[in-house]
Amino acid sequence: MFIAFEGIDGSGKSTQLVLLEKYLINRGKKVIKVREPGGTILGEKIRDLLLNFNMNKRSELLLFLASRAQLVEEVIRPSIEKGYFVLADRFSDSSIAYQGGARNLGKDLVEKLNIFATNGIFPDIVFFIDIPVQMAVRRMKEKEKDRIEKEGEDFLEKVRTTYLHIAKSRKNFFVIDGTKDVDYVFSQIKRIIDTMLDH
Amino acid sequence: MFIAFEGIDGSGKSTQLVLLEKYLINRGKKVIKVREPGGTILGEKIRDLLLNFNMNKRSELLLFLASRAQLVEEVIRPSIEKGYFVLADRFSDSSIAYQGGARNLGKDLVEKLNIFATNGIFPDIVFFIDIPVQMAVRRMKEKEKDRIEKEGEDFLEKVRTTYLHIAKSRKNFFVIDGTKDVDYVFSQIKRIIDTMLDH
Ligand SMILES: Nc1ncnc2c1ncn2[C@@H]1O[C@H](COP(=O)(O)OP(=O)(O)O)[C@@H](O)[C@H]1O
Ligand SMILES: Nc1ncnc2c1ncn2[C@@H]1O[C@H](COP(=O)(O)OP(=O)(O)O)[C@@H](O)[C@H]1O
Ligand SMILES: [Mg+2]
Ligand SMILES: [Mg+2]
Repeated sequence: MFIAFEGIDGSGKSTQLVLLEKYLINRGKKVIKVREPGGTILGEKIRDLLLNFNMNKRSELLLFLASRAQLVEEVIRPSIEKGYFVLADRFSDSSIAYQGGARNLGKDLVEKLNIFATNGIFPDIVFFIDIPVQMAVRRMKEKEKDRIEKEGEDFLEKVRTTYLHIAKSRKNFFVIDGTKDVDYVFSQIKRIIDTMLDH
Repeated sequence: MFIAFEGIDGSGKSTQLVLLEKYLINRGKKVIKVREPGGTILGEKIRDLLLNFNMNKRSELLLFLASRAQLVEEVIRPSIEKGYFVLADRFSDSSIAYQGGARNLGKDLVEKLNIFATNGIFPDIVFFIDIPVQMAVRRMKEKEKDRIEKEGEDFLEKVRTTYLHIAKSRKNFFVIDGTKDVDYVFSQIKRIIDTMLDH
C-alpha cells in the first residue's frame, strides 16, 4: 500500500505522517517513509539544486520529476513489492498543484509527465490536508524559508485551489480538514485507513 | 541562427564547432558557443550529477532536459534574439539518440519531452557528424571516460543507428561524413553554411 500526504507547507503533512507511521507499526505493519524531493543519493543532490538555485519553471518541474523517478525505482517500487506500507511526504500531486497550477504549466501536462517519471506507479491513497493559506503562514512564521516557500500567499492560494480541483476528479484523493487539532485531524485519516485495512 | 552539432563522442563535433566559429567570426558574425549538458550555473551542477552518479534512465533523460530548459531560457533564446549565431555542442537530438534510441525510451516520447523542455526552440540546422563506432573508439582510446561514455560499443551502435533514422525524416538534419580529414569534413559543413548565408 502506497499512501501520499499532500498540502501546502504548514498544513500538517509531516505531523500526520508520523502519527500514521506509529499507528501502522502498532498494528504490525512494515512501514517506510520517503520524502520529496530527495530520498535517494541522487534525489538529495537534486533537492539541493531545487531549494537553492535560480531556475526557470520547466527546469524546476523536470528536476522534481528526475528525483521522483529515482525514488520510485530505488525505493518505492521495491518496498511495495516487499509488502511495505510506503508513506510519502509529497508525491506526484505536488507537481500538479505547484508547477501545473501555481506556475501555470498546466495540470494535464504535468499529469502526463508524472506518468513518465513514475513509470505508472501512483499512490493508492492521497491525504490532502487542507488549511487556509493564512493559517499555514501563521504556523510557519518562525521557519526559515527555501526558494519555493518564499513565493508568497498568492502562489499558495493557487496551489491550494489546484489541490481542491484535483479532489473533484479522483476517488482516492481525500480532503482532510487540517484546521482542527492534531488528534482530530488524525482521527479523520485513521477512519479512512481502518476502512482500507478491513478490506 | 541556431546550429547544433551531433554525433557520438570522438566523431569530431568539438573540432568542427571551433572551425565554424572561426569561420563565422571572420565573416563578421557574432557567435556564441554552448555545451550540453551544462552552459549555465544550474546546468553545470546537473552535468556533474549526470556524469558521476548512478541513476535510472528516466532520471537521466529528465536531468538532460532540465539542463536544456535552463540553457534555452538563459542563453540560447536571448542570444538568438540579439542576432547571435548560437553553436551548440549537442542539443535535443542527443536525447533522442541516446535516451530515446540506445536506452529504449522511444524516439517519439523523447521528441515530445524535448518540445516541453525547449519550449519549442530547436536548431535551424543540425550537423550530424557520422563515423563508425570503431573509429570513434580508436580516436577516444586515451581519454578518461564518464558514466555514459563507459556504455560500450553496442550502446554506441544504437546511438548511431538512431541518428541515421532521424536523418530520414528531417530536412535540416545533415549527415556529414566524419571519417575524412578535418579540413575535408569542414568543407562539407562550410558548403551548407555558405548556402544558408547567401539566402
Ligand atoms: N492540527 C494542527 N494544529 C495546529 N498546529 C499544527 C497542526 N498540525 C501541525 N501543526 C504545526 O504546524 C507546523 C507545520 O506542521 P508540519 O506537520 O511540519 O506541516 P507540513 O509537513 O505540512 O509542512 C508545525 O509547527 C506543527 O507542529
Ligand atoms: N576528421 C578527423 N580525423 C581524425 N581525427 C579527428 C577528426 N576530427 C577530430 N579528430 C580527433 O578525434 C578526437 C575527437 O574529436 P572531438 O572533436 O573532440 O570529437 P567530439 O567532440 O565529437 O567528441 C580528437 O582527438 C580530435 O583531434
Ligand atoms: Mg513537512
Ligand atoms: Mg566534444
